[in-house]
Amino acid sequence: MSEILADPGNYGYTFGGREPVAEVKPGIPIRLRTLDCFGGRVRTVDDLPSRVCEFPYLNPVTGPLFVSGARPGDTLAVHIVSLTPAAPVGISSTFPHFGALTSTGHTRTLQAPLEERVWLYDIDPAAGTVRYQARRSDFAVDLPLAPMLGTVGVAPAAGEVRQSIVPDVHGGNLDTPLLGPGATLYLGVNVPGALLALGDGHARQGDGEVCGVAVEVAMDVTVVVDVVPGVPTGTPRLETDTQLISLGAARPLEDAFRISQEDLVRHVAELTGLDLLDAYQLVSQTTHARAGNVVDPQYVMSAGIDKRYLPGTAAYGGVHDRLRAG
Amino acid sequence: MSEILADPGNYGYTFGGREPVAEVKPGIPIRLRTLDCFGGRVRTVDDLPSRVCEFPYLNPVTGPLFVSGARPGDTLAVHIVSLTPAAPVGISSTFPHFGALTSTGHTRTLQAPLEERVWLYDIDPAAGTVRYQARRSDFAVDLPLAPMLGTVGVAPAAGEVRQSIVPDVHGGNLDTPLLGPGATLYLGVNVPGALLALGDGHARQGDGEVCGVAVEVAMDVTVVVDVVPGVPTGTPRLETDTQLISLGAARPLEDAFRISQEDLVRHVAELTGLDLLDAYQLVSQTTHARAGNVVDPQYVMSAGIDKRYLPGTAAYGGVHDRLRAG
Amino acid sequence: MSEILADPGNYGYTFGGREPVAEVKPGIPIRLRTLDCFGGRVRTVDDLPSRVCEFPYLNPVTGPLFVSGARPGDTLAVHIVSLTPAAPVGISSTFPHFGALTSTGHTRTLQAPLEERVWLYDIDPAAGTVRYQARRSDFAVDLPLAPMLGTVGVAPAAGEVRQSIVPDVHGGNLDTPLLGPGATLYLGVNVPGALLALGDGHARQGDGEVCGVAVEVAMDVTVVVDVVPGVPTGTPRLETDTQLISLGAARPLEDAFRISQEDLVRHVAELTGLDLLDAYQLVSQTTHARAGNVVDPQYVMSAGIDKRYLPGTAAYGGVHDRLRAG
Amino acid sequence: MSEILADPGNYGYTFGGREPVAEVKPGIPIRLRTLDCFGGRVRTVDDLPSRVCEFPYLNPVTGPLFVSGARPGDTLAVHIVSLTPAAPVGISSTFPHFGALTSTGHTRTLQAPLEERVWLYDIDPAAGTVRYQARRSDFAVDLPLAPMLGTVGVAPAAGEVRQSIVPDVHGGNLDTPLLGPGATLYLGVNVPGALLALGDGHARQGDGEVCGVAVEVAMDVTVVVDVVPGVPTGTPRLETDTQLISLGAARPLEDAFRISQEDLVRHVAELTGLDLLDAYQLVSQTTHARAGNVVDPQYVMSAGIDKRYLPGTAAYGGVHDRLRAG
Repeated sequence: MSEILADPGNYGYTFGGREPVAEVKPGIPIRLRTLDCFGGRVRTVDDLPSRVCEFPYLNPVTGPLFVSGARPGDTLAVHIVSLTPAAPVGISSTFPHFGALTSTGHTRTLQAPLEERVWLYDIDPAAGTVRYQARRSDFAVDLPLAPMLGTVGVAPAAGEVRQSIVPDVHGGNLDTPLLGPGATLYLGVNVPGALLALGDGHARQGDGEVCGVAVEVAMDVTVVVDVVPGVPTGTPRLETDTQLISLGAARPLEDAFRISQEDLVRHVAELTGLDLLDAYQLVSQTTHARAGNVVDPQYVMSAGIDKRYLPGTAAYGGVHDRLRAG
Repeated sequence: MSEILADPGNYGYTFGGREPVAEVKPGIPIRLRTLDCFGGRVRTVDDLPSRVCEFPYLNPVTGPLFVSGARPGDTLAVHIVSLTPAAPVGISSTFPHFGALTSTGHTRTLQAPLEERVWLYDIDPAAGTVRYQARRSDFAVDLPLAPMLGTVGVAPAAGEVRQSIVPDVHGGNLDTPLLGPGATLYLGVNVPGALLALGDGHARQGDGEVCGVAVEVAMDVTVVVDVVPGVPTGTPRLETDTQLISLGAARPLEDAFRISQEDLVRHVAELTGLDLLDAYQLVSQTTHARAGNVVDPQYVMSAGIDKRYLPGTAAYGGVHDRLRAG
Repeated sequence: MSEILADPGNYGYTFGGREPVAEVKPGIPIRLRTLDCFGGRVRTVDDLPSRVCEFPYLNPVTGPLFVSGARPGDTLAVHIVSLTPAAPVGISSTFPHFGALTSTGHTRTLQAPLEERVWLYDIDPAAGTVRYQARRSDFAVDLPLAPMLGTVGVAPAAGEVRQSIVPDVHGGNLDTPLLGPGATLYLGVNVPGALLALGDGHARQGDGEVCGVAVEVAMDVTVVVDVVPGVPTGTPRLETDTQLISLGAARPLEDAFRISQEDLVRHVAELTGLDLLDAYQLVSQTTHARAGNVVDPQYVMSAGIDKRYLPGTAAYGGVHDRLRAG
Repeated sequence: MSEILADPGNYGYTFGGREPVAEVKPGIPIRLRTLDCFGGRVRTVDDLPSRVCEFPYLNPVTGPLFVSGARPGDTLAVHIVSLTPAAPVGISSTFPHFGALTSTGHTRTLQAPLEERVWLYDIDPAAGTVRYQARRSDFAVDLPLAPMLGTVGVAPAAGEVRQSIVPDVHGGNLDTPLLGPGATLYLGVNVPGALLALGDGHARQGDGEVCGVAVEVAMDVTVVVDVVPGVPTGTPRLETDTQLISLGAARPLEDAFRISQEDLVRHVAELTGLDLLDAYQLVSQTTHARAGNVVDPQYVMSAGIDKRYLPGTAAYGGVHDRLRAG
């Protein structure tokens, strides 16, 4: 088993533009540590991110990993075996001019920013909870621990290098709660070895990541990868034991929605042999449509269908079931 | 119990601009029939909507009902007791230049429209299923029967009259799968008697109503209403046994998202006494964000939070629980 | 010549839903007075609109006028002969949560609103200037007087009634600086007599009406109308001595852009006999694309082409030239 | 004078990620040749771009040029002295799923693409015209020759590498008709030497570049650069002899509009000493707001104000006037 620590030199702030830190093999579990999105610099409620972090060097991703045998035109399947918070406390915050309910660098206004505030969440792995504690009152409530990775991606095509905070067709900062243990992420491979990197663990996150920051925490990650040779993937897809999901990353949000739904329609048509309009109809009556993030440089929407409505089909030749079986 | 049939004179195509067809009393169940969105004109796969329907006279709503005691500034609570399909077959279709995966009258392009096609769904109330049958292959699959109302609203403010196909702060064509039996919809009252109207029953619908048309069916509806005096409601809200939900209607889709999330944050703050930023944080880690429709003149997003995270609170003085108890 | 004062009873706050105040004849000049968008209630810098005005009763429009002979399916041509400010001082302001550089009721955030502030502009008709005077410094500068009407429209189709602040296919609050003296506006007729109403005079306005308010002033208006029988108009169009213009009203702004450009392409194709793709190409290399408003419930973009690139053509049978000749 | 030919090795397809091809000095005119956006591969109406070009290797930019003395935190001023078409024929086309009046990879639909078609424009430098010739009829018309550069940019910040087709804060594929001879473009410097690159010459272009392609032509370019030390620039700005302009690149289009207008408000406030709200007001009554492109991965809007309304001010210490004087 490969084991990659989050030591300096093992992480960075981009997809593309960096040399691999390790080579990994399909089918062999990989263990790695990811830093939280603040790089560990926010430790107390007084550590305001805009003071202790150095913009835009946020959202470090561990890697990249060179996947043996992955070639441009293939699909990389990344199966998340387990996610374990590597710290007892998760952190959230507001940032000035970041988030969905504030003006931002894109949706600019002349208004003053919201207050910058930090929240700490006690994580209780045994109870399976994270504890919300208000900052300006005694209100507190336990929420389910529901670990996920915010950011998983490969090197982009055509020599592009993107900041790790950007989600796009190469994956990146997808920020969907669906990307948790037991899920398999499918990404198109653009360069030899794919150059996979991962980070931005969340102890939990609501749809949309509304304030811009989930319950952020360093994470002990176990993944296993596989390569589906000669099968390209356009926009990122997810598979769970029950659902087949397409992700769209774009602005405005309806374009993210359109990408995710159109890709799901085409995927369903391909798997079932339905013509496009028949697949469009089936998806229209069955899909979920949930916001991933509505705060990053591109927004993310997911489109998902229950696999029981697609009897007798197996996406990507059944790689999810094989990786799930371990 | 009031009983309103879908006879001519009992339905129309607008919110506002029409005289009440009946007066109803809070707390007394109301039974009514709603027509399907085609007004019953599409009966076979050869009845293309653009030929058999007269645009824009689609989406008839039964009513309006004058609610005794409802005054401007109050909130009308509409609790859906039961929804029973009033026909054995549900209908869906594509329309030329309508839907999320086609250019439209708003998102205009120079491309030719998609083919117009009709699908029929056999409804089996005993089995609790609707049957998808492809038009160009033998593929068929049973989907769960999950009845809901697409369109519920009141007369708009300031003398406006809106087509029933438009969702906005007065309700209207919200098209969210969350508006089913057991749910309570909260709408601000703009005129004496509120002038409630309902229609657009769906045997089921995916998030986003992607192709523009759900599994449409005439519906036998039982609702019970109540008036929350002196409590205004801005954007429509929903309550179920487990969730508190705000709906946002707007374009682009991120504005629908923002409205729904901002309203939920303010509602949570009001119910819990949290300050706005603390409520923003709690909502960020717990909300769902699902598309209602992404096809109507305004799009709809829902923001929902589990009520168990708001212990000791009751929205609108607990009216949902009272109506639910019957 | 008809003469309609802005007396009570002669104006209102909607398109549709009101009885005509006068009947007017094609070809006969009509003189009328329009109130400013505040209904005259803002007179000093201390008259903050949110205090002295009664929301949403803003933007009064004079009319509606019943145009003899106008029938559904016709086009109404409204030629603006002259616009003369009817007050010596124009007024502008910020509103809380209204404008392009603030969060709004649609683009909601949790931020505090901008300060509400009023500016007064001295109008010098002889010099042809309006004087900007800063409120927090001595900076002052003369700007060209460039009168226009923000709001011109007819009754909507299908029984709808829209607030006068809304621009859409029926015209309404278009807020484009192009709608000044010498311009002809083309609107589709939806009801017998068209029911034309006008208001919202601006002494001048920048593209986009960025802060939400132009240099607002009561206006003495002379218009002359004509009816183009049997020729429908979808989205509003404008014609000047040099340009042919299509207007698109929608959100997001790219949809307003798409509507305006698509309509211009179709108009050019129809006038020149070019096929759609050839017209698309010609428009692509020649069109202007300017923001009308980016603050109203729907945004407006204009698409315009110089008529010299369309030799030998005349829109709507040359009605602009005839009305211009007087 | 530097002279850089468009030889292999002197151009590429990204901003960032490439070594400088030459070092240039402030104040010394630079002559260079840029290829057309097709890299010269489209020569006849039968050379369909999707066949003769290799996606995504379009839009080559000449450079990058290392500007002596430019350091991160400075502003680079790029003054366009002259633009001369380097070919007698300009080329335009439609692309499948590219352009504003078609569905695209972002605004996805299930519709078939528009026809791909190529148009050739004879350029007559003496007459100052380019000749539009329809492909499906005899219609032809002369349009003014109005050369401009579609793409001018520097290396992005934080190690990012962006395809040359993307406009953003580093410049790039801005595609505004305002970027012609006599204009000065201001770009923030992110890396030592700035790494300036230029390309995508247009013989002319309409606002919005609606079909996705202007009248494309190789160009002989003369520019002169200067460095404004210690003065950062956020979003790209332009200056002409009469106007001060801010450019916003984003989706949706209203965000591009907001960025451009907010930046202009801040620039005007800084130059005049007006407070933000007074500057907001002045800009609201005077700005133009024109679409640059509405087809690239990010859209571009320009916000411009006549410099005569800002008496006694000089942007960036008057560098435009100095470069203009030559």
